[in-house]
Amino acid sequence: MIHGGDLLSYKEFYDGDLVDFSSNINPLGYPQGLEAHLVKSFSSLLAYPDIKYRRLKENLSDYLGCQEESLVLGNGSVELIDGFISLFERVLVFTPSFYEYEARTKVHGKALMSLSYNKDFEVDLEDLSLVKKRDLLILGNPNNPTGLRIKEERLRAIYEVVVEKEAFLLLDEAFYEFTEGYDSIKLFKGEEYRNLAILRASTKFFGLPGLRLGYGVTSSAMARRLEGLLLPWNINSLAEAAGDYIFKDGTYIEKSRAYVKKERDFLSSGIEGLESFKVFSSESNFLLVRLLACDEDKAFNHFLSQGLIIRKCSSFRGLDKSYIRVAVKDRENNKRLLNAFRSLDDYLRKSPASL
Amino acid sequence: MIHGGDLLSYKEFYDGDLVDFSSNINPLGYPQGLEAHLVKSFSSLLAYPDIKYRRLKENLSDYLGCQEESLVLGNGSVELIDGFISLFERVLVFTPSFYEYEARTKVHGKALMSLSYNKDFEVDLEDLSLVKKRDLLILGNPNNPTGLRIKEERLRAIYEVVVEKEAFLLLDEAFYEFTEGYDSIKLFKGEEYRNLAILRASTKFFGLPGLRLGYGVTSSAMARRLEGLLLPWNINSLAEAAGDYIFKDGTYIEKSRAYVKKERDFLSSGIEGLESFKVFSSESNFLLVRLLACDEDKAFNHFLSQGLIIRKCSSFRGLDKSYIRVAVKDRENNKRLLNAFRSLDDYLRKSPASL
Repeated sequence: MIHGGDLLSYKEFYDGDLVDFSSNINPLGYPQGLEAHLVKSFSSLLAYPDIKYRRLKENLSDYLGCQEESLVLGNGSVELIDGFISLFERVLVFTPSFYEYEARTKVHGKALMSLSYNKDFEVDLEDLSLVKKRDLLILGNPNNPTGLRIKEERLRAIYEVVVEKEAFLLLDEAFYEFTEGYDSIKLFKGEEYRNLAILRASTKFFGLPGLRLGYGVTSSAMARRLEGLLLPWNINSLAEAAGDYIFKDGTYIEKSRAYVKKERDFLSSGIEGLESFKVFSSESNFLLVRLLACDEDKAFNHFLSQGLIIRKCSSFRGLDKSYIRVAVKDRENNKRLLNAFRSLDDYLRKSPASL
Repeated sequence: MIHGGDLLSYKEFYDGDLVDFSSNINPLGYPQGLEAHLVKSFSSLLAYPDIKYRRLKENLSDYLGCQEESLVLGNGSVELIDGFISLFERVLVFTPSFYEYEARTKVHGKALMSLSYNKDFEVDLEDLSLVKKRDLLILGNPNNPTGLRIKEERLRAIYEVVVEKEAFLLLDEAFYEFTEGYDSIKLFKGEEYRNLAILRASTKFFGLPGLRLGYGVTSSAMARRLEGLLLPWNINSLAEAAGDYIFKDGTYIEKSRAYVKKERDFLSSGIEGLESFKVFSSESNFLLVRLLACDEDKAFNHFLSQGLIIRKCSSFRGLDKSYIRVAVKDRENNKRLLNAFRSLDDYLRKSPASL
């Protein structure tokens, strides 16, 4: 299992509706008015999307605070990750991180250099001495599955190395809106995104993984170069139409931020009190948990028996079978998850022989 | 202008709604019940599409009459065209044909061999002596912009050459449902689609260019190989949901076929009677017209002055400025188009100096 969200494969093992803690989607779902807006936009299906996506770029430019010329659009941000990988000679990733960085590198037959994050799951600046000209360094910010965000000064330092070496930095910021603090799009505006791209998407924060709308900000020269590679009409008309709505719903955006922060703290502090687990601090809508007294399979089966699907993490290079990842959901489901953590903890403490 | 359908670029030149004859979409639009079905499917946006697209493949397998293992899915058939091109050493196209065959070949840095159709816009079998091992031969069937379909015996003969040379035949059948006669998916079932792929899509016949749903049939070995390259979740959740509806609407399918045939005959015989044009026989929902007394720019501006956007064809390699392509639409609009053809003909016959 290399991706979360595959509930279909498990439905036979539980008599009832499964709750998906394995993929990390805004628990409030998509903005409430979106459906009515899409209904009004159905007729857009009758025509090809605007091949230049002028309106969508206008909407994104307002939302992100960048020039339209800096924007690139993808069928999910994975299409943009793929496009950037195809343009460079070697790809550097730090592990653990999103599976597709490595997968798409292999598809393109590019060289891969895989380094480990340090023990705090941060980039060690010393490791960047390995960066060479024409390398593509991909960093999740916040990173999946750790949930950690690069600190502002460290990000500056990483960027300086990348520029000095004439390499390229790809920041995958799919979870950006769940964070607090700096905005990298503002941070690097002065540099005109030279040797840099910042990817975001409607997938996680706007609760729209099915929509397939990814976007990125980079130098206008790089944007034109990438657009020369991407497929025409790569964004569905309804995704194009959704852009007229979701980025303007300020109330939803603020409410989602606050809600996820509160529920993340609720879950996190609940797990923290249990002996059998170590929970990592996260700036995203998910938590990485280290299992101190069982492996991921035992944990997975326990949660499955409660109708909960969690994410096993040994498929992430750099993590072993002692890690799981859980999404932050609504209070009712988070309580169910916490109860399952508690009952697993109880069981593990009573039957140490089961290890 | 390398693609039709870009009305936005022309709206300032006409005071009123423009009618788009430049892109070739079923004039009846998408099936009537689709909207209600999509409304019921909105919640599918909240989750990633099934990464294996099991239900969509089941629906397509029923509709196309093939095994699920033979199916490949694309974000529009252009993603599949692109994927196949990336797998071969050299691409052979006959011109005039769809621009993206050549464009995607260039993006992948592959060798391109471009041959001309003969004077009847058919493949000359003698030209296939140039086919080599590991070549990808792409043929539109029916072909765009000519509207012509390969005759069954000729298709058999082409396929035999391809198999003998250990090359690969990619049939782009985006307009299949508008045709009569053989079904290539049935025709090559016995060969298990060895050295062959047949691409179709919801775009043209189902009136859904904005949906981005392309699909193809090939050998199961090739299907697995291609799936190894394609991006995960490349089909939007609503496109996945549409598959539950559109392929089962037999009434719509039959009505659309009959309607387009009737309107195509109406348009075609109307243009045939005019001195200044030669119309080619078509098995699709569009007509290629040769301009005998003016060039495409003059014709384009004339139609634009009537609020009609037609497709200039000099951007198709193999055609010069004396060709245009027009879509078959509903009776009212087809009458408007015919009237514009008539007034252009009148004008050209009265002012031969304008040539």
